[in-house]
Amino acid sequence: MAIKITGVGSYIPSAVEKNEDFNNHQFLNTDGSSINYENTTIIEKFKAITGIEERRYAKDHLTSSDLGFFAAEKAIINANIDPETIDYIIVAHNFGDVQKGKEQSDLVPSLAARIKHSLRIKNPYCVAYDLLFGCPGWIEGVIQAQAFIKSGMAKRCLVIGTETLSRVVDDYDRDSMIYSDGAGATVIEGDDSDTGILSFQSASYTYDEAYYLFFGKSNNQEGCQDTRYIKMNGRKIYNFALTHVPQAMKACLDKSGEKIENVKKIFIHQANEKMDEAICERFYKLYDYPMPENVMPMSIHKLGNSSVATVPTIFDLVINGQMENQEVNKGDLVLFASVGAGMNINAVTYRY
Amino acid sequence: MAIKITGVGSYIPSAVEKNEDFNNHQFLNTDGSSINYENTTIIEKFKAITGIEERRYAKDHLTSSDLGFFAAEKAIINANIDPETIDYIIVAHNFGDVQKGKEQSDLVPSLAARIKHSLRIKNPYCVAYDLLFGCPGWIEGVIQAQAFIKSGMAKRCLVIGTETLSRVVDDYDRDSMIYSDGAGATVIEGDDSDTGILSFQSASYTYDEAYYLFFGKSNNQEGCQDTRYIKMNGRKIYNFALTHVPQAMKACLDKSGEKIENVKKIFIHQANEKMDEAICERFYKLYDYPMPENVMPMSIHKLGNSSVATVPTIFDLVINGQMENQEVNKGDLVLFASVGAGMNINAVTYRY
Repeated sequence: MAIKITGVGSYIPSAVEKNEDFNNHQFLNTDGSSINYENTTIIEKFKAITGIEERRYAKDHLTSSDLGFFAAEKAIINANIDPETIDYIIVAHNFGDVQKGKEQSDLVPSLAARIKHSLRIKNPYCVAYDLLFGCPGWIEGVIQAQAFIKSGMAKRCLVIGTETLSRVVDDYDRDSMIYSDGAGATVIEGDDSDTGILSFQSASYTYDEAYYLFFGKSNNQEGCQDTRYIKMNGRKIYNFALTHVPQAMKACLDKSGEKIENVKKIFIHQANEKMDEAICERFYKLYDYPMPENVMPMSIHKLGNSSVATVPTIFDLVINGQMENQEVNKGDLVLFASVGAGMNINAVTYRY
Repeated sequence: MAIKITGVGSYIPSAVEKNEDFNNHQFLNTDGSSINYENTTIIEKFKAITGIEERRYAKDHLTSSDLGFFAAEKAIINANIDPETIDYIIVAHNFGDVQKGKEQSDLVPSLAARIKHSLRIKNPYCVAYDLLFGCPGWIEGVIQAQAFIKSGMAKRCLVIGTETLSRVVDDYDRDSMIYSDGAGATVIEGDDSDTGILSFQSASYTYDEAYYLFFGKSNNQEGCQDTRYIKMNGRKIYNFALTHVPQAMKACLDKSGEKIENVKKIFIHQANEKMDEAICERFYKLYDYPMPENVMPMSIHKLGNSSVATVPTIFDLVINGQMENQEVNKGDLVLFASVGAGMNINAVTYRY
């Protein structure tokens, strides 16, 4: 049986936060000391490494489950299905619903229950749950949907990734410029064709790596020290990702039996442009094959890093012709790949 | 293939919070008005309905992932397996790690990543994720483990339910007396016997019911109105549970092809004694069969409602002979059932 993506949708918040909007921030080192550069220099360096020029923030009255609902509605329309026929709603996120200006994550009921409620689905046998797996959560949801369909527990699943990282950023941390808000959703179904998911790979590196991404204190040691924010050990993550992600992508592709020269696109988690490029270069190097131009569509310049939302969002943009010089055609072999908190890594080989 | 529980463990916090420890609480109605009874009367009524005499609270320095780790260690020893051979660690919870005296839920990294880290498992292909599904989260984790094993993605899964509800209670709310802390864990594996999971049933009622259990403001309207706590609409939940849980249990049992007279034990979520009894009575009434004495082991009197932890904990206590007049023998047919936030319901028919 082939497990396929039969509908895609994404929600890109309309509010644009430009790099220059950070000009008046007081950035500090993790020990609270001042950074010996002007903000303009800090922002220039930031842009050179991450590629990020601007990012999107959800409107104040919206939460992560609202964004997920908007993306889900589009995916359902795109798949042209009756929402009452969905067997599972799987919602990947990392911080729950955090209201603007508040600190607590709201997780009860689950975001999946909220989204199902908003979709006005009545069928109680549409099972709605949340999945926490770091940034690779949406890909992991697709892998879980595949398991449910293969084992006969489901025919049709809705897999959503949604996040409002703008609600958990430390204003005193340069890394806050990375984070963005957004949501992506896909309908996953089984059929008898030879397209769809060909192979997958998942891994959790927790022995030394569990706390590379964590919830930590502000760099401003004079503020309220109770409040926690999203924090990362950027250097360790960079080295970790370059060591393990290309290997995971290769293991995934090799399992599919397909050849590197047939890979048409790589939809990789939009974490950091330089890191993503280095990962893909190493991936191709493992095959001793030259990395093709335009193989890796990048949305990070304008959309930042919206965690679980980046991969379904960029996939949606490309297949719907909204990214210049990027397209996917029927029969094309593509790879999905992600890395993030856990530290988790996953990949899927997919024939479109 | 039979999917079986091959190891069980639970962690019951040592700190006992007795009903009399609530004598000096100032309980208020949801509108902030005073309750026209003495606390002793409130507590007496509470005990008469819920059956709860005392509950357990985690020690101040521990969080939910610590409790889950303790239970997991025991389940691994009980299963007599090498932890490096575990393919999935699935951790059900609802509020993440909440430190004593703090308000924020800490979800990054996932609790599953933290527990895997604490178990010192090196194998990166042991995939660790969190599952949010209300109180039925542990049973849902078992159902997901079954899917992974059936679809060939896993051979051995560790399914944990852990919660520290004491960290999210509103001191001004009578319902705060219900909530407790705890963790339960099980190892799930496939084999060729005819025992194990015979059938399951899952449902999410979100159309009208999504917010019956929610994260809401304190009953004390003079305090900080930003902080949210676990809140329930008790009457609606009671009516909902009595309408839908017996039906779900019957649908589950009927799918297994087994007869009601063969059911030896029902391990039901310890939500409220009167409600649990009424659910089981209605379940038997659906078959027009008398409810046997002692069919439903109850731990709620001494352990309260620890959400996702109640079902694996009571199962552990019974099969390890720690509950008077309760036992399960090889070949016995048992039911697991739960209901909670979402509103979610599930059940599993199991041959021990």
